[in-house]
Amino acid sequence: MRSMSSQETPVLDPRADIVDLTAAIVDIASVSGQERVLADAVELALRTHAPHLEVLRDGDTVIARTHRGLSRRVLLAGHLDTVPIADNLPSTRRHRDGREELVGRGSCDMKGGVAVFLALAVEADAAPVDLTWIFYDHEEVAAADNALTRLAAERPELLEADFAILGEPTSAAVEGGCKGTMKLEVTARGVAAHSARDWVGDNAIHRLAPVLERLAAHESRRAVIDGLEYRECLNAVGISGGIAGNVIPDRATALLNYRFAPDTTVVQAEAFVRELLAGLDLEITVTDAAGGALPGLDSEAAQEFLAALGEDVPVAAKQGWTDVARFSALGTPAVNFGPGDPLLAHTDDEHVPVADLELALRGLRRFLTR
Amino acid sequence: MRSMSSQETPVLDPRADIVDLTAAIVDIASVSGQERVLADAVELALRTHAPHLEVLRDGDTVIARTHRGLSRRVLLAGHLDTVPIADNLPSTRRHRDGREELVGRGSCDMKGGVAVFLALAVEADAAPVDLTWIFYDHEEVAAADNALTRLAAERPELLEADFAILGEPTSAAVEGGCKGTMKLEVTARGVAAHSARDWVGDNAIHRLAPVLERLAAHESRRAVIDGLEYRECLNAVGISGGIAGNVIPDRATALLNYRFAPDTTVVQAEAFVRELLAGLDLEITVTDAAGGALPGLDSEAAQEFLAALGEDVPVAAKQGWTDVARFSALGTPAVNFGPGDPLLAHTDDEHVPVADLELALRGLRRFLTR
Repeated sequence: MRSMSSQETPVLDPRADIVDLTAAIVDIASVSGQERVLADAVELALRTHAPHLEVLRDGDTVIARTHRGLSRRVLLAGHLDTVPIADNLPSTRRHRDGREELVGRGSCDMKGGVAVFLALAVEADAAPVDLTWIFYDHEEVAAADNALTRLAAERPELLEADFAILGEPTSAAVEGGCKGTMKLEVTARGVAAHSARDWVGDNAIHRLAPVLERLAAHESRRAVIDGLEYRECLNAVGISGGIAGNVIPDRATALLNYRFAPDTTVVQAEAFVRELLAGLDLEITVTDAAGGALPGLDSEAAQEFLAALGEDVPVAAKQGWTDVARFSALGTPAVNFGPGDPLLAHTDDEHVPVADLELALRGLRRFLTR
Repeated sequence: MRSMSSQETPVLDPRADIVDLTAAIVDIASVSGQERVLADAVELALRTHAPHLEVLRDGDTVIARTHRGLSRRVLLAGHLDTVPIADNLPSTRRHRDGREELVGRGSCDMKGGVAVFLALAVEADAAPVDLTWIFYDHEEVAAADNALTRLAAERPELLEADFAILGEPTSAAVEGGCKGTMKLEVTARGVAAHSARDWVGDNAIHRLAPVLERLAAHESRRAVIDGLEYRECLNAVGISGGIAGNVIPDRATALLNYRFAPDTTVVQAEAFVRELLAGLDLEITVTDAAGGALPGLDSEAAQEFLAALGEDVPVAAKQGWTDVARFSALGTPAVNFGPGDPLLAHTDDEHVPVADLELALRGLRRFLTR
């Protein structure tokens, strides 16, 4: 189903079987920074098959919108890029444990979602809401390079919506909002000395003992918001120290990662960690932080989405940070909804169950063709 | 005072002023593995100026002995090698805080001691004991490469003595015996997980909390042997763990260094650490161990040495491990006695006070010319 145009842009058929469409998208390699060919293919498919959409191009991001003057606008976004290929392209299909799977880099994170969105962007020409589709670049790399960062800064009007759906893998369940994340560097200082004369030194590694102890003993908060439970996580994700085998080290550092519930701000999260480590002689530096996203499931658009999916579709809290937080920061309630098990993202055996693709397609179709 | 012979062997004058002799030895660079030229120079000086000695050569080690049939033999050993040069050669002299110092790589560790030994090897032709002088290579590197390891294995008769004096820096005090040293790797295992879902993982870094806590709380034993106090030291000298900023690590390792009193065997030392960490789920591996050396100050030869030095010379326990342990293992009581502050060894500002050189020379001269 993939062939080359005269400009060598691969041709995608959004009306093909969803598994074939996903495989075709997976087979256009698009590691972060190399999304151009896939962006070209998506743009071409939309321009060819979706005359009801205004199609815009911004770098390697493709934006397609309806302008039907409806009372609500829903935005559906999926990133085109993947983490590096691990000898897992082109895609293959297999049967395992009684189910059919499409295997290959990006099949789960998140070209299954991109395929579902592309199919429905073409199909849903009479949706009960105005629609904005965004196929964007540079999600799997630094936040500064993420196309949504660029759009939010330069063309924020393109991101305006009453409700946003991010096609990240959720096994075709609804995962509302997301937790925030903060990275901290916690450094203890001591005094170096020969390890045969430790009484003239002060062991910086030993000074991390109460840090690890408090982290290990800490019982993380479980915040229930809109009926969804966000389990906070506070962990040392790295530790280092030591100069030589015969030296008392004068410096040791623990790297902490705090995943906090979306009812907590970045400022509150930092204060919480500092309070937990209060009374210890440490240098604490926040090296990275991003607030979470409230699920916003009580909004009318969200309620309509959930009603359309039906009661069989599980609704849970999104534990990992995703780009829904960017929409939340713009005041737009957002959920994650896409095919594929999020635990398989980035793994060498990345794959997506065919059933997930069909489930996600049917669910979104019910929402957009009410 | 240094010049080249036709074989390009530098000429050392053992009867020169002790500071000049030390400077000349310091100025023959002899980083471990490059001791040949200095060994040649020492050998040449002994063959030229000490007809009362049998001079032997073994690799880059020079051995010189008397065979006068006396009832006791005293061995005096000093290593010729240094740690790498740090832009601190050739040597310089300076006055600081009212004292004169010779500055340069090896001046403290331990060419001051080598100079004192070389001077007395030539001078002490009528000592009250038979003498063995050993100027050896490869002390500052792995124990397996140390020339004393080679001699003990291949020519143990060369190391036979009733008492041994190692010229390591002690600020011209007597430091008896030495503590043992053991390195251990302590690894905690866990289960990796995404850091936003820590409840499906098990944080290996957190599992090191009780290890650090017990080390920090541990009150080390102080063993008094022959009136000398050996303070044990048990420390984490390294720690590492972590996979990525968003991953709960499944492995974390602490490197421990235990410096134990010389009345404790290597086996007892390992048992002690394992007992301290008992009940914790850890993998504990001994990666390196060397027993200490009892001071043996009650031996007759040691008592004669101390009496010759006089009561003004401080006598203390040697805290760091030195090659005295090799003699102790052979059943020979051994002490450290040499010019220079041991805390300056290996530093870029390595230096030796002129007063230390003179003090060590005078002290040993009293012992050998009774």
